[in-house]
Amino acid sequence: MKDRKDLSCIFRPRSVAVLGASARPGAIGREVVKNLINFEFQGKVFLVNPGHDVVLSMKAYPSVLDIPDPVDLAVIVVPGPQVLEVVKECGEKGVKGLVIITAGFREIGGEGANMEAELAAEIDRRGMVAVGPNSVGVMNADPAVRLNASFISTVPKPGNVALLSQSGSIGETIIDFAQFQDLGFSIFASLGNQMNVDSRHLLDYLQRDEQTEAVLMYVESFRHPKEFVSVAKRLTRTKPVVVVKAGRTAAGAHAAFSHTGSLAGMDVSYDALFEECGMVRVSTVEELFDIGRAIASLDFPTGKCVAVLTNAGGPGILATDALVAQGLCMAEFSPETTDTLRKELNPSAAVSNPVDMVAGAGPADYETSLRAVLPDPKVDLVLTILVPPVMIDGEEVARTIVRVFNDLGRPKPMLACLMGLSKTALKGRRILSDAGIPTYLFPESSAHAMRALWRVGQHVGRDPAPPLIRLDTDVKAAQSIVQEVRDQNRKVLSLQESLLLMMAYGVKVLPYESVTDVEEALAAAEKLTFPLVAKLDEPDLVHKTESGGVIADIRDEAALVHAVQNLRDIARTHRQDRDADDETVAAPVHVILQQMARGHETIIGMTTDPTLGPLLLFGYGGIYVEIIRDIAFHLHPVGEVQARKMIRRISAYPLLSGARGDDPVDEAELALNIARLSQLCGDLPEIAEMEINPFFIAADGLPCGAADARVRLA
Amino acid sequence: MKDRKDLSCIFRPRSVAVLGASARPGAIGREVVKNLINFEFQGKVFLVNPGHDVVLSMKAYPSVLDIPDPVDLAVIVVPGPQVLEVVKECGEKGVKGLVIITAGFREIGGEGANMEAELAAEIDRRGMVAVGPNSVGVMNADPAVRLNASFISTVPKPGNVALLSQSGSIGETIIDFAQFQDLGFSIFASLGNQMNVDSRHLLDYLQRDEQTEAVLMYVESFRHPKEFVSVAKRLTRTKPVVVVKAGRTAAGAHAAFSHTGSLAGMDVSYDALFEECGMVRVSTVEELFDIGRAIASLDFPTGKCVAVLTNAGGPGILATDALVAQGLCMAEFSPETTDTLRKELNPSAAVSNPVDMVAGAGPADYETSLRAVLPDPKVDLVLTILVPPVMIDGEEVARTIVRVFNDLGRPKPMLACLMGLSKTALKGRRILSDAGIPTYLFPESSAHAMRALWRVGQHVGRDPAPPLIRLDTDVKAAQSIVQEVRDQNRKVLSLQESLLLMMAYGVKVLPYESVTDVEEALAAAEKLTFPLVAKLDEPDLVHKTESGGVIADIRDEAALVHAVQNLRDIARTHRQDRDADDETVAAPVHVILQQMARGHETIIGMTTDPTLGPLLLFGYGGIYVEIIRDIAFHLHPVGEVQARKMIRRISAYPLLSGARGDDPVDEAELALNIARLSQLCGDLPEIAEMEINPFFIAADGLPCGAADARVRLA
Repeated sequence: MKDRKDLSCIFRPRSVAVLGASARPGAIGREVVKNLINFEFQGKVFLVNPGHDVVLSMKAYPSVLDIPDPVDLAVIVVPGPQVLEVVKECGEKGVKGLVIITAGFREIGGEGANMEAELAAEIDRRGMVAVGPNSVGVMNADPAVRLNASFISTVPKPGNVALLSQSGSIGETIIDFAQFQDLGFSIFASLGNQMNVDSRHLLDYLQRDEQTEAVLMYVESFRHPKEFVSVAKRLTRTKPVVVVKAGRTAAGAHAAFSHTGSLAGMDVSYDALFEECGMVRVSTVEELFDIGRAIASLDFPTGKCVAVLTNAGGPGILATDALVAQGLCMAEFSPETTDTLRKELNPSAAVSNPVDMVAGAGPADYETSLRAVLPDPKVDLVLTILVPPVMIDGEEVARTIVRVFNDLGRPKPMLACLMGLSKTALKGRRILSDAGIPTYLFPESSAHAMRALWRVGQHVGRDPAPPLIRLDTDVKAAQSIVQEVRDQNRKVLSLQESLLLMMAYGVKVLPYESVTDVEEALAAAEKLTFPLVAKLDEPDLVHKTESGGVIADIRDEAALVHAVQNLRDIARTHRQDRDADDETVAAPVHVILQQMARGHETIIGMTTDPTLGPLLLFGYGGIYVEIIRDIAFHLHPVGEVQARKMIRRISAYPLLSGARGDDPVDEAELALNIARLSQLCGDLPEIAEMEINPFFIAADGLPCGAADARVRLA
Repeated sequence: MKDRKDLSCIFRPRSVAVLGASARPGAIGREVVKNLINFEFQGKVFLVNPGHDVVLSMKAYPSVLDIPDPVDLAVIVVPGPQVLEVVKECGEKGVKGLVIITAGFREIGGEGANMEAELAAEIDRRGMVAVGPNSVGVMNADPAVRLNASFISTVPKPGNVALLSQSGSIGETIIDFAQFQDLGFSIFASLGNQMNVDSRHLLDYLQRDEQTEAVLMYVESFRHPKEFVSVAKRLTRTKPVVVVKAGRTAAGAHAAFSHTGSLAGMDVSYDALFEECGMVRVSTVEELFDIGRAIASLDFPTGKCVAVLTNAGGPGILATDALVAQGLCMAEFSPETTDTLRKELNPSAAVSNPVDMVAGAGPADYETSLRAVLPDPKVDLVLTILVPPVMIDGEEVARTIVRVFNDLGRPKPMLACLMGLSKTALKGRRILSDAGIPTYLFPESSAHAMRALWRVGQHVGRDPAPPLIRLDTDVKAAQSIVQEVRDQNRKVLSLQESLLLMMAYGVKVLPYESVTDVEEALAAAEKLTFPLVAKLDEPDLVHKTESGGVIADIRDEAALVHAVQNLRDIARTHRQDRDADDETVAAPVHVILQQMARGHETIIGMTTDPTLGPLLLFGYGGIYVEIIRDIAFHLHPVGEVQARKMIRRISAYPLLSGARGDDPVDEAELALNIARLSQLCGDLPEIAEMEINPFFIAADGLPCGAADARVRLA
């Protein structure tokens, strides 16, 4: 990592100074001191307060400069206008790390943003590292450190999960809930405004933090997404990262230059980013939390077939629904498993999956079922449901589940769903949880956790993606097309220019001729085969089809003459309508003639996300992309490997792979064309948006290629 | 209601006998007695136990016949084999109502099912009504009754929500959770096996139960769906009904006779049923529960624009995401609201929606915001979020919210999201909840509840659907076509027969000719206009297109001759392949000739759900229906009004209504054709499955109609 920051001064300081320490009840400066002391920080805590020489029974120094010992970390809670001054003093003192809790900087805009810029420059100049400002603080639960440099009122349980939160209040809420659910944390950091240290520095640090085995994140935005991706990609190969990204609906709509542009106006670029990183994105904080407990204590499954054991039918059905809805499947047991269950369980029990041991099932039934199901090679995960009824000792069942699971060597991940809040249910939950079997209240939350376990397991341990292979392209030709358009002060390429650009990059284009009048059209038709399509090549005409600028199924010369005349009229009218000068109105009208193509119509596009950069898109069929939104996205760069994944991700993929008895299309060719478009947008960053719509693709060996293309420069 | 049952003996008995009362710890017969006594049943409780004359300090009678007073309700917890006997005695005694808790009947199959049949007959004969068997019991919290005839360990809080559960354990779980969340119940019934009393009788009773203002249901299956629909339709016009239907993925796959058949193999028929009933279906028990609390205490909104107030940015963003994902919208404030907020809130507050009052916002900020936002005519619902921070008195904020909400006359539904489980958060939650403001832990659950409030409000108070108008059709012609096919021992109609059947019911069919050889084809072509489509009319050939049985775009006579010869060859080969006798192989090959049609390809279908009966289907475009599953379903009968709703419900509807500059299609014509198909399946119940695919539809006045149809008899 280029811009690595050494964060050990933040998370493993030997001494901490609180600047703005206070004894006033309700003051943040008081809470920070209390937290540091109560969490039993293993180093020295110094307090700084220019107005008092004693704070909370401890000596307070007028300034950080007055502290006799070296200070590794300063926690800053002084009022906003004083922050810059105390930071300067920290610099003089040789403090390496800062946690700036004070708010009122960039997040309020205006003067706050100016203050932050000044502060950032000062910190950079002094070579310090800083979390915040506008952070609720950081924690490290490592017993060798025990740092709680935050004003969060709950003390987190130590554990193996790191939590990074861009929102202080969400971070606080998670830690608060975690308390009640036995989720323990290794590291917590409230990112605040990410002025100096941002999420990628933290992920990089967590890669090497031995206490951390998994990472949960709450994210609203990224400051350096590209760098983030490269750090995250590396981390997720060894430690799972689960993320909630808020602001799904906040992204503004794009101008409707192309479908690609407007389609990407949703939150898909972040989905593409997380996919690329190998991170698992979930929708809600509650899920983040449910999943955290599962990845903290269980191994990852090797498949996605779940066995469900239950003592009540309803919850078993709900679990089946939820598991299937989450993309998992219900294991089909081996015959031996079913036999054992049939022999040993109550005759009224259902011995297929879900196994319903029926009400009244006691510890012995759970033991029988677990011993049959857990070793079954067709089972990848187990969900054990218990609805504590009056007649059964729920605690004894819980103890039995733990004993059998451990006896069998915890061979597969197992979750428990303990419905109910009675005392016996709560005690059962405690017994399971203490034994590292995460428990859930509802079948649905159990299913969410199982899905995440499975997905996370697919990422962890994976090989790095192969390096992209550079495809052979004519960069100079492409550059000169773009340069000419820019020289003419245009932003939108003509159809002819767009197709030439594609050809320069080896993107397949269907045979076509560009003509300006009937004579040229008739001559061009000699080189093509009827039926033909004639398209108006008028860059200003955005909605070509809707304006009648596309005439299809031209079957003979008479129809061709008629079509060309028609298109010329449309072009002239359009030019007059937008009050072009006489010269422009009279300028030649370009018409593109193409043979009617056969095969599947697909769409290949590229748009530029304001934060994340170029985003490639693949979809099936012009209008369906728009209405059904069946589209796959991928951040640039896309090689052939990634392109294949995109193709296979759309719902209409069966149409391409030979549903209904058709021959499958030439997927390799399709992928290659997507990769070429990606290389084009990488090489010519002045291109803001591209769309090939339709790109015809048919079976191996049959003609394929772009029939229409649009390109817009930034 | 035809089959109405008087359930007052179940829910408002003056005396209850417990048959199988027991003092043995853990026995259900003990729990039932304890529950009756502890809940302070307002009538007399009698215990029956042939072995003991004292049970739990109360006199026990050897048999129900020995009880000196009249008995309205008997709760039966004796072992399975004794149930029939004690029920007979109840009959003799003149007991009117039974709650049979004993299990081991139909749910275990075999002997259990026989026992249940015998029991059902006995109860019918005696004119008694019975809940169960295999029920956990019933409750009525009305202070004049106070009946808890169940073995559920939690005592529910009295309230205005009725809960019906097909699963005893799910019912118990909901009551258990409700305890912790201030959801009170009027009536609870565990439906058990629905042997005598089923869900429709209960809904009918709840219609007239004055304590009940809303109904929550957990359902796995229906015994009499048609009757259920008519009762539920009436109830939901006055009281909202929210349902979880389990078993989404359990339905088996249909044989792939038509797309319609295989598409309906999911759980869509239940979606259609609930839609028809005006019930709101939700996915999880947790949602049912979140929503119950909202509909129990709030009015329904008049629109779906939500104002969000928050003291922390992150939760505000999450709420926005969740609300929009739930189909609600963020209110755009009136200028006066924004002005007031800007003037009176902290300058760093965000005054657009969500209103972020920023950390440190106290009671005064909440008061200001609520007074500005609640009366704003652009706001239909309000979500108030509070993340209790260290510095703020959460209880005081909660009290302020309550005071202001009541001061303003509770003008709109308002929910609160109180994140955190600290003491102050819990106290704040109590304050809000006691004042009838439902509170949630997460923005997402708040959004679920808001969506349900909005949807429920759309159903309550609606007018009954207009009665179906009978369309003019030739029933006799249709019957004779079907009769002839049956006479020939066939199940599948030929294309010709199918089209004639459609025409008999006034369903539009595109002009076509049926021919058997080249000469006939050439003659027929005179009556049609090239280009033509030729289709093999071979009922046994299920996958016509895939087998080459459809030849499109025939442009002249030569091509026609070639096509007809080709189709004849395919038919003969197909017949030989399936080892038909020589006569059959030599029989005439029927080919349907049609003009190539223009317009949108839609699909209109009908399939028969094994439980719910005929189900109509509408979708856009042949292959897209199959792959994208963009389909609207509706239970039969479908009139023009319902058909229009189906048309508008598909995602591709914009294509039909004039997206991309096309003329909108003739929706009235399309709806009429769907209604005609519905009438056809109603009149001829021997039809099991029909599909018109494609049905071409274009703008008003242009030709439209079925181009292909398949019909299968039961």
